[in-house]
Formats: sequence, C-alpha cells, structure tokens
Amino acid sequence: MLLSSTLLENAVAEFAKLPGIGKKTALRMVLHLLKQDVNEVQHFAEVIARMRVEIRFCKRCFNVSDREVCDICANNMRKQDIICVVETIRDVIAIESTQQFNGTYHVLGGVISPLDGIGPDQLTVEALIDRIHKEKTTEVIFALNPTIQGDTTIYYIQKKLADTPVNITTIARGIAFGGELEYADEMTLGRSLQNRMPVGSYR
Amino acid sequence: MLLSSTLLENAVAEFAKLPGIGKKTALRMVLHLLKQDVNEVQHFAEVIARMRVEIRFCKRCFNVSDREVCDICANNMRKQDIICVVETIRDVIAIESTQQFNGTYHVLGGVISPLDGIGPDQLTVEALIDRIHKEKTTEVIFALNPTIQGDTTIYYIQKKLADTPVNITTIARGIAFGGELEYADEMTLGRSLQNRMPVGSYR
Repeated sequence: MLLSSTLLENAVAEFAKLPGIGKKTALRMVLHLLKQDVNEVQHFAEVIARMRVEIRFCKRCFNVSDREVCDICANNMRKQDIICVVETIRDVIAIESTQQFNGTYHVLGGVISPLDGIGPDQLTVEALIDRIHKEKTTEVIFALNPTIQGDTTIYYIQKKLADTPVNITTIARGIAFGGELEYADEMTLGRSLQNRMPVGSYR
Repeated sequence: MLLSSTLLENAVAEFAKLPGIGKKTALRMVLHLLKQDVNEVQHFAEVIARMRVEIRFCKRCFNVSDREVCDICANNMRKQDIICVVETIRDVIAIESTQQFNGTYHVLGGVISPLDGIGPDQLTVEALIDRIHKEKTTEVIFALNPTIQGDTTIYYIQKKLADTPVNITTIARGIAFGGELEYADEMTLGRSLQNRMPVGSYR
C-alpha cells in the first residue's frame, strides 16, 4: 500500500499484526483513530499498554487478574473445593458466561502435545496437582477441548492423582443443542448412544 | 461479558470502539496482545499514540503527511498543474494504488450535504479555489463518489470557477470491468450508452 505518511504506515503495520486483521482493515481502524480527538487516542494507547504491563495471573488458578489472587478464587460464595480445569483464559470466560458453574478454575495454559514440544513442564500441571493435594479438593472437572491432546492431558493428570481421594469428571460429550444427527460425526453419535441418559434428566 | 480483570475489560472496551470490531473480536485481540512481549505491546501503543499526535495534513492538498507539505505535492516529477479532487484520504490511497495518475490531489474532507449540515465552509473548497487561481492549474479532475451530494459539490465548485481558464473533468462512469449488464442500474447503463466510446479506445 502506498501511503503518503510513514507515521500512518507504521500504525497500519502495527494493527495488521493483530489476528484476523489485514492491511485494509488496519487502515480503516487507523483512519478512524485519526478522526478521533488526540486525548481519546492517547487514552486508547495508554489502556492497552497498561493492561499488558499491570495485568497479573492469579497465583492459585492462573486466570488473569488485577490482584495476586483473582476474584473467583477470592470469592467465598463459590465452592472452593471444586476445580474446573481448562486450557485457556478464553475457556474460563465461556464457562462463566453460562452462569452454570459455581466452583473455581485452573488454567493449564494449553494441553500436552509432544508434537508441538509441549510437555507437562510447559503447563501448570504440577501446580494443579500440588493444589489438589493441599486444598483437599473434592472434585476435578476437566473441560478441555475434545482432541487427542486433551485426552492425553486428562490421562496424564488422572494417573498422577491415582492415590488421591478426589472425584475426577469430564464435561459431557454428545449432540449439541440445535445440532442435527445427520451431520454429527460417528464418534460423537456413537458415544452419545453409549452414554444415553433417562428422558427428562436435563431441564 | 464477565471478565475477571478490570484491566482486561477496559482494553476490550477500547478495542470494541473501533469500526467493525465487536466484543468477541476485541477480546481476541486483547488476549493476543497479552501473549506478546511487554515491550512489543508498549511499542504498539506508542506507535498509535504518536501517529495521532504527530501526523499533519499537507497545507496544500490536505492529504495526511509527516511534514508541512506531503510527498506528492513536494514531488517535482508529478504534474503539479493537474489536481484530482477527492473526498477522503482513502480515495487518494485507492487512486495511488492504480499507478495511473501522475498529478496532485486535493482532499475535500467530504461533500456538500445540506441535510447533514455540511456546507462548503466545512470542507476545503475555498482552499481549492484559491489554489487553482494561484497555481494556474490547467486541469481539475473530480473523482467524487457518484451521489447527489457529489454532483452538487462538482456543480458548486464548477460555478465558482466559471471565469477561470481551467479544464474541468470527472472520472468516467460506466459498467465496471467484470460487472454484468443485467445487474447494472438503469442510470449507469443509460449513461454508458450515451457516452459510448470507439472500440479499442482503452487498452
């Protein structure tokens, strides 16, 4: 793209680094900011930079937090003895938005994937196991994506917890609400038959 | 959206102000930045803020520029006596990317639109007319969007230039390359018949 200003070009290049943003969309954003008040754009830049510098990760569950311990871990109204294990912060947000879970989380930071060079040491697996031992957790719910890597991770952690008196569960797999049987893969459909449930068991 | 960090929430809200960016996309961007190095994110913020603070508008053509006069106006290889009048900076970029134009530009900043309360005074119309008089411009090419407001603007400026010996033209209207006659509106198709041209006149 031929822009008449290096300042503009640099700003476009920065925006184009963001995921899913091409040069044209980046230009649109920059031209939008150009029309805004100087103070507003400076505020935009400050909020972004401050977020990255000041944000912390909860020392207990590794969720993003403004303080040492996140709001979910600090909330005594939530069942602190139930841990929902997820891959990323995004999964925490997804589960929180269902308003169906009242326990705590543990963000692994990914799943075990030897092909990508990710072993348990790159994740917060050790911290999870320590935490379960120390806190006398009653239930660990795995809410990982249904991939081979996710299953491997569950298997690995489950083995480590063999001697620990804790209930280990995983979220239900099956046909999604609104999903059509016809288009479901055999694996999902087969498993949903095996794990069939009494009519009326879900509201 | 329920996020566990106010810092994160503020950053998402800032990104969501950008055109075409919803809360979900904004969150995706913020989580992407969260994974980047602190220095890189600070650089991102600085480039954006600096762009807004330091950018200038060419005092001759009102295009964005790093200096008092933009690169196009300062370039002696370009025909300085031909002015292409456009609405926005974006149009300059679009025309420049065709590499078919070797004159200068004049950015109006919009078109005359009484319904929106935009008269000639809100635009750079006066500066354009002064410039044409002073610089003894030989040709003014209007490259405005084909709207009633665009046509009104052309008419207004043309009237103001009635006594000035300058060639006034407008970019060709017609069926776009790759466009289908069947779907063209009657106005475009009718005009393209009226303004028919000898076969082979365009390469």
